Amino acid sequence: MVIHLPEAMARGKTGLSPRACPTVPAYLWSRAMRRRPARFSLLLALFAAIPATALASGDGHGLSYDIWLILAGMLLAAKLGGEIAVRLNQPAVLGELCVGIVLGNLYLVGIHTFDGAADLVPVEFLAELGVVLLLFEVGLESTLTEMRAVAPTSGLVAIIGVVAPMLLGYGVSLWLLPDAPFSLHLFIGATLCATSVGITARVLKDLDAMARPETRVILGAAVIDDVLGLIVLAVVASIAEFGAVPGPMDLTIIIGLAAGFLIGALLLGAYVMPGVFRFASKLRTPDVLAAVAIGLCLLLAGVSGAAGLAPIVGAFAAGLILDEVHVKPFGRKSAHDLTEIIGPIVAVMAPIFFVRTGMMVQLGGIGTEPLLLALALTVVAIVGKLVSGLGVRGGTADKLTVGIGMVPRGEVGLIFANVGAGIQFEGQPLIAAGVYAAIVLMVMASTVVTPPWLAQRIRQVTRKHADVT
Amino acid sequence: MVIHLPEAMARGKTGLSPRACPTVPAYLWSRAMRRRPARFSLLLALFAAIPATALASGDGHGLSYDIWLILAGMLLAAKLGGEIAVRLNQPAVLGELCVGIVLGNLYLVGIHTFDGAADLVPVEFLAELGVVLLLFEVGLESTLTEMRAVAPTSGLVAIIGVVAPMLLGYGVSLWLLPDAPFSLHLFIGATLCATSVGITARVLKDLDAMARPETRVILGAAVIDDVLGLIVLAVVASIAEFGAVPGPMDLTIIIGLAAGFLIGALLLGAYVMPGVFRFASKLRTPDVLAAVAIGLCLLLAGVSGAAGLAPIVGAFAAGLILDEVHVKPFGRKSAHDLTEIIGPIVAVMAPIFFVRTGMMVQLGGIGTEPLLLALALTVVAIVGKLVSGLGVRGGTADKLTVGIGMVPRGEVGLIFANVGAGIQFEGQPLIAAGVYAAIVLMVMASTVVTPPWLAQRIRQVTRKHADVT
Repeated sequence: MVIHLPEAMARGKTGLSPRACPTVPAYLWSRAMRRRPARFSLLLALFAAIPATALASGDGHGLSYDIWLILAGMLLAAKLGGEIAVRLNQPAVLGELCVGIVLGNLYLVGIHTFDGAADLVPVEFLAELGVVLLLFEVGLESTLTEMRAVAPTSGLVAIIGVVAPMLLGYGVSLWLLPDAPFSLHLFIGATLCATSVGITARVLKDLDAMARPETRVILGAAVIDDVLGLIVLAVVASIAEFGAVPGPMDLTIIIGLAAGFLIGALLLGAYVMPGVFRFASKLRTPDVLAAVAIGLCLLLAGVSGAAGLAPIVGAFAAGLILDEVHVKPFGRKSAHDLTEIIGPIVAVMAPIFFVRTGMMVQLGGIGTEPLLLALALTVVAIVGKLVSGLGVRGGTADKLTVGIGMVPRGEVGLIFANVGAGIQFEGQPLIAAGVYAAIVLMVMASTVVTPPWLAQRIRQVTRKHADVT
Repeated sequence: MVIHLPEAMARGKTGLSPRACPTVPAYLWSRAMRRRPARFSLLLALFAAIPATALASGDGHGLSYDIWLILAGMLLAAKLGGEIAVRLNQPAVLGELCVGIVLGNLYLVGIHTFDGAADLVPVEFLAELGVVLLLFEVGLESTLTEMRAVAPTSGLVAIIGVVAPMLLGYGVSLWLLPDAPFSLHLFIGATLCATSVGITARVLKDLDAMARPETRVILGAAVIDDVLGLIVLAVVASIAEFGAVPGPMDLTIIIGLAAGFLIGALLLGAYVMPGVFRFASKLRTPDVLAAVAIGLCLLLAGVSGAAGLAPIVGAFAAGLILDEVHVKPFGRKSAHDLTEIIGPIVAVMAPIFFVRTGMMVQLGGIGTEPLLLALALTVVAIVGKLVSGLGVRGGTADKLTVGIGMVPRGEVGLIFANVGAGIQFEGQPLIAAGVYAAIVLMVMASTVVTPPWLAQRIRQVTRKHADVT
């Protein structure tokens, strides 16, 4: 007899061993407390009821009640951080990142509530879902036609943005690590060529700049960059591991899969989607539009993952191919409705991604020796992407804005570094702990520096434009 | 040097070993090329595109691209199933459950795409989040005042609904398992007393019956039932494990925590929430209302979990205490807005819960010997809860509707059974495999039988009411 019952079900509710108590984001309400002490201390008491041993109780997967408390803390902290950023005239996402850094390093002052929270599968998953839906929403606000128009520019920006940081990174590695093998220089160069577009997309959204020409150039370049990065990683990893470039067959498969996905997504938008949505519009179930749209987004995220690309590339493609023409059968206002439906979901989920990104910045225990390497890498990481803006031709898009928009490395750079750490060279990891730390610092610096800089530049360009007209 | 980087990050995108890759695109596009594809088969093709090797590639936790495909499949299947149910004049949730049963048993016909999908942590988490948000939404549609008015009735319904199934279950166990120990009879009785209100809430919502008096009685009774169930479980488990009822101190702690949570939630609503929302209404970050509301929901879900209650009880309480008065500072239409914001999120997430519930019904490999026990338990499980409707006094609420609404055991019954399976009696699990299987079947039967029955009864009552007036 086979009874297939997830043991996880048993975990939700044990109730038999009330645990000891902790203190949670007291700082959250401290501001509010000054004004209405009595009421807020009640809330504080509620918070104080949250068990301290929260994470100790789980075995790393499966659900316990702690996950709700952690998510509630992350969500409320995100909005508080966003608020502070907005009042300081910064994009909200910067506040979310900073709040994440604070939460992730509370252990330095003896508060262990959020220790390991970023590694919990539900948190990781919700964060990933948040950024997938964010890129879907961003895709909804662009059309394929607009993207096709900027394709040559985007391609040039992407190519410069891959080649320049690679050369510069190679040079820095050769200069600061003269005794390291050739393949390490190559790998460090490769980690610099990735672009993670989540941060940039969020900043542009925070600033209401989705309709700007720079936005389309950056988004297009980020997609192409992801394809190029995939090829670079394959080639570099093959050289490091086997001392040879991959065979033409392997490269063909890698490129073929990625290109196949992108072309397939275009065909899907042109030929299949109208039918699917005409069909869906005849369904009587409520909320079918939202479900089908998000189903499509998840489907393309998965397929792009299967093709070796980042899931956010698929989600963005899903948003792009969902043009107004497709949702027309749902009624005249439905395109607007779709954004109205996706908006709140993204508003709740995406902050989890940015807070988690911040939480992964670990301030404690970083020694001084990788700092010089980190500094040098950060400088060339920024310069290498800034020059990619030179790929912008014509006068419509601002070169510097595009360059800044390409700067964040985000999780993609870390994925590269992790591949390198997994390769053995003469019995040691190719990317040793010190170099790894320097790469992590470079990734974090490039991620945190972007929001304020991009915001400042866009405001400047907008003002200049207003002065001219 | 401590660099704290989740290894999970490395999994998203390795790109080095393009797997025996799904011939996904080919499948999709070939269909697209034919001019006007039959629309149903188009959706089917979308499913077929999901790589069969999906789960084989993951290690059970962490994210790989499969999770997006699985979720897309579950979401689209849910809407298809819901559609069929609606066309057959049934609540959509019945279709979602049935589609889940189909997906979860595809392995019987050699399709292994969804094998183990229900056990994946992201699926489990999203399902749980879906039902938590569903109960939050349901709570938003009721007010504390309304609930207080039905409290005596709800209390009586809950008490009858705990005592009657316990006695009946004890009797059935004594009759069919005459040689089993006293504590097993007791435990089987206890598994029958739980009520899982998710299914009922969804049916009532599908039928637009949230404003009916029965709805408030059922919801109130479900909350009280959860508290009573907690006490019953503690007492029964203590008797089974130690041969004695828990000491007064232990019982006081258990009851105190649960009661403390409920009273705390009431105080929170009355004294703290107005201040929090006045504060939040002054924030300039967009979507702050949705984030604060959902943050509150997750917070109370976690705190109720910490108090030993089900997270959905906390989520429902959060919805209840969020009255219109609290969101008033956000502008006159904000209460309406909040439902508008939460609605789409629930519409996308809740189906994942119901499809997953269906997926856990495993049709294969169930032997015949527990079937008699399962049948007998199912009968008394249903009868025991139906008589709880007799607790309804006055003529406003329909007794039978309330009784049917209390029938589903859902995951709560399984949690009880799992606790029992974890207790050793003379070197054996107290609840052995055969008995366990019978309990699982009882839980599933009580869950699947409710939607059509409840829908039929509510329509009948509505018609009768219309005839009278």
